[in-house]
Amino acid sequence: MATPFRADESLDVDGFQKSMRFMAEAGCDGATIVGVLGESNRMTDRERETLIRAAVDAVADCGRPFPICVGTSHAGTAATVALSQMAQELGAAAVMVTPTKEPAPASDDTLAEMYARVAEGCPGLPIVLQDHPASTQARLEPALRKLWASELPPASDCTILTGLGALYAGFDMEQGTDGFMTGFAFPEILQAMNAAAQRKEWERAHALYQRYLPLLVFEQQPGVAVRKELYRLRGLIECAHVERSLPGIDVSQPLPASLFA
Amino acid sequence: MATPFRADESLDVDGFQKSMRFMAEAGCDGATIVGVLGESNRMTDRERETLIRAAVDAVADCGRPFPICVGTSHAGTAATVALSQMAQELGAAAVMVTPTKEPAPASDDTLAEMYARVAEGCPGLPIVLQDHPASTQARLEPALRKLWASELPPASDCTILTGLGALYAGFDMEQGTDGFMTGFAFPEILQAMNAAAQRKEWERAHALYQRYLPLLVFEQQPGVAVRKELYRLRGLIECAHVERSLPGIDVSQPLPASLFA
Amino acid sequence: MATPFRADESLDVDGFQKSMRFMAEAGCDGATIVGVLGESNRMTDRERETLIRAAVDAVADCGRPFPICVGTSHAGTAATVALSQMAQELGAAAVMVTPTKEPAPASDDTLAEMYARVAEGCPGLPIVLQDHPASTQARLEPALRKLWASELPPASDCTILTGLGALYAGFDMEQGTDGFMTGFAFPEILQAMNAAAQRKEWERAHALYQRYLPLLVFEQQPGVAVRKELYRLRGLIECAHVERSLPGIDVSQPLPASLFA
Amino acid sequence: MATPFRADESLDVDGFQKSMRFMAEAGCDGATIVGVLGESNRMTDRERETLIRAAVDAVADCGRPFPICVGTSHAGTAATVALSQMAQELGAAAVMVTPTKEPAPASDDTLAEMYARVAEGCPGLPIVLQDHPASTQARLEPALRKLWASELPPASDCTILTGLGALYAGFDMEQGTDGFMTGFAFPEILQAMNAAAQRKEWERAHALYQRYLPLLVFEQQPGVAVRKELYRLRGLIECAHVERSLPGIDVSQPLPASLFA
Repeated sequence: MATPFRADESLDVDGFQKSMRFMAEAGCDGATIVGVLGESNRMTDRERETLIRAAVDAVADCGRPFPICVGTSHAGTAATVALSQMAQELGAAAVMVTPTKEPAPASDDTLAEMYARVAEGCPGLPIVLQDHPASTQARLEPALRKLWASELPPASDCTILTGLGALYAGFDMEQGTDGFMTGFAFPEILQAMNAAAQRKEWERAHALYQRYLPLLVFEQQPGVAVRKELYRLRGLIECAHVERSLPGIDVSQPLPASLFA
Repeated sequence: MATPFRADESLDVDGFQKSMRFMAEAGCDGATIVGVLGESNRMTDRERETLIRAAVDAVADCGRPFPICVGTSHAGTAATVALSQMAQELGAAAVMVTPTKEPAPASDDTLAEMYARVAEGCPGLPIVLQDHPASTQARLEPALRKLWASELPPASDCTILTGLGALYAGFDMEQGTDGFMTGFAFPEILQAMNAAAQRKEWERAHALYQRYLPLLVFEQQPGVAVRKELYRLRGLIECAHVERSLPGIDVSQPLPASLFA
Repeated sequence: MATPFRADESLDVDGFQKSMRFMAEAGCDGATIVGVLGESNRMTDRERETLIRAAVDAVADCGRPFPICVGTSHAGTAATVALSQMAQELGAAAVMVTPTKEPAPASDDTLAEMYARVAEGCPGLPIVLQDHPASTQARLEPALRKLWASELPPASDCTILTGLGALYAGFDMEQGTDGFMTGFAFPEILQAMNAAAQRKEWERAHALYQRYLPLLVFEQQPGVAVRKELYRLRGLIECAHVERSLPGIDVSQPLPASLFA
Repeated sequence: MATPFRADESLDVDGFQKSMRFMAEAGCDGATIVGVLGESNRMTDRERETLIRAAVDAVADCGRPFPICVGTSHAGTAATVALSQMAQELGAAAVMVTPTKEPAPASDDTLAEMYARVAEGCPGLPIVLQDHPASTQARLEPALRKLWASELPPASDCTILTGLGALYAGFDMEQGTDGFMTGFAFPEILQAMNAAAQRKEWERAHALYQRYLPLLVFEQQPGVAVRKELYRLRGLIECAHVERSLPGIDVSQPLPASLFA
């Protein structure tokens, strides 16, 4: 989930909670917040805390368990552990940790140790290992092999969730993904595709993928501005504000009509 | 067009010429060679020369003009001019020049001067200004404004061709692109979409986009290995070899069946 | 000033305060903390707060004003302002702000606005504009021109302090630097050089530079490990620990004997 | 050795040959050309050829063997081999090969194979393995271990030459370097230091280092412009021209007087 900001860059906590409830009602199995897409790198730790509390509160009475996963990546290992512990204390069901790219590239041992220390510092808390070499310049695979070879749970206990805006969702499903964890503004589509795939209704899964692929592609445009504008158009957040140092969009231009055909 | 290499990294000139003729027969309006996709950065200047000659020869008797555009980007401005002059002498119809990213980022004046010097060094030769900030970290727009403000032809005389693997083709067509210049392994699909768009048959153009988008997405995978394997499967080149320092693919695995549905 | 960590990566607050007092006694005019050299990117906001309080307390009774400058650079502009306000409230005499390199490179307007917003958010607080294009890929000069042209104090009111480990100190002094702001582990040498330069005793200034240049060069080695080990050898901090993801040094090897001749 | 260009960016072959003879007369044991410092990335292959011929010819009658080492790094492995073979045919005594940084970072196996292929393609030709992780983001050490473990000559047969502008020369000598291979504009100083070090006259070696360190530091300024201007001041090359896309210097300003004290 993206983080909605007002024009003065303060957090739009109401919009954020509304979005959380929307996801729960759309049939999602959970939500991930304060990740890369959530522009966590431009937040203070206090703002992270505010968002975690808000997310956990928003779905507390949604009638079913709705786990909140919190991004806690940080250039410092001790800081990653501290942010993960804060998330766990505030009710997060999991944390998502990306290899730091400073200094680039971290060695396999450093990565393996980072994950081991988060696991040790947060007993019982599931960890999502985010693998995104295009941005982190780190390949997780060798570090993972080291982790599996030591004390961590075996690889067979792992859930594989795919990201990249679900651009490759059709192929991901064929390869056996367990689900999607990505920031697409129409989570009900991902939910429907994944439900079909888990029931092995491949024709339906592929038909959905084919049908909505232009929309998935449209959201692939760099930055988070398009995604935020779609959230705004859906009535979830107040404003599609993106920090001035990031690419924005000209919202005075209508979105392509073909998207809504 | 990608550059086909044999397993010993020598140029597969036959496959390259076969691909050129294939494109001419597929109804393309021309071909671009020795660009970024063509792995020009791993070639010697002699290999560049061999490929330009081979391309020009291959389409010489195809019964209609089939312009060859040659990528001549180089870290040195004088070298860019020299490579462009070589291309012009060997029969290229245009050159394509990308801003160098060394040292990053080049100033607007440096970029404008680079293009002016290529134009001066190659009288009468059209220049394709390749804008790809994701890889070059340079925004062409301010340099272009400086160029238009001086002696170059006015912007209205420019042709806009879109790239990025035609991933956004549906939206590009709506915005008025004049065509596609990108490395998709099924150029007849791009040709058909563009023909429909130029005739303003939007329904057909969008239907084609929607129909073939999974294929366009599949080719978006990083590197040139997937594209080369598709060329090989189409019988155009011998081998999908990609230099060992680049990501390859495991061709012992079948391609997703859904691609060929 | 570097930030001393214990082997378990907790802050060595005692060593940090001891170092602050050492600098005051060595005749420095002030100290800068929580900057790039201070590994601020690996700290939580709470740790930043702890260090600012510790520094201000440590020099409160040193018998003369000893200003503490605090690094508050952050990828988010609002976060930069928030961290700067925290520093001001805790007694910082100035803040140091570096252009963010995410996304690279920020435009001149974005940079100018960032500094303007920090100035607006922290009335009366001097701002150090850190210019280090090698790491930030941003050139401050055009942004500065925009700032001087608007409401900020004129350039003539600025103090120029040079950094880069004082490697170029001899040339900086000749060019009229007002002093040094850098992390060299022997601040008394910088202090002596600067005192000589301010009195225009060029022969003494250059003799000091020439005498201690091997030491300045030795500290230029990448990373902060060498500097921390020198602080430890001087009895200021407990341990030269550097996070595992950063290059460390083999302290079982003696330092070159020639350094201490 | 830097590559001298005239103001129109053509090669100053006369200046280049004069510089080669100057180095031979200064007592150097050889010269390295067309490397990173030589701006080889902005040259066409024909210009590389011209420079190799010119260097070999210039020192042919200098009365003693004066080996020319040629930089042949290239993003393509086959191209690296081809450039190395060209160098060998033209009389080069060795080639210098740097790990490519595209795509970053190359794996250890890729690096090891690259060196093995150059060795195989150029029988009998010594290879200089240039290790400069700051620019290549590749650590050579693991690749080297793989090479030593296989068919290459044992590590004990290697010569270690240090670079980085000889900034750390004093420490390099203490650690047992066999010599310097770097672009300092006063090679006679490096020659004198190294001669002292090889005779274990440490006091003299260190005195020379200390004496000339300000000059070594001055040349550390980014880019090659300062170095070229010093060559020009020494009467070796016509013009300190540096391509416009690279940082230049304002040569209307005098160099610091203290440098020539």
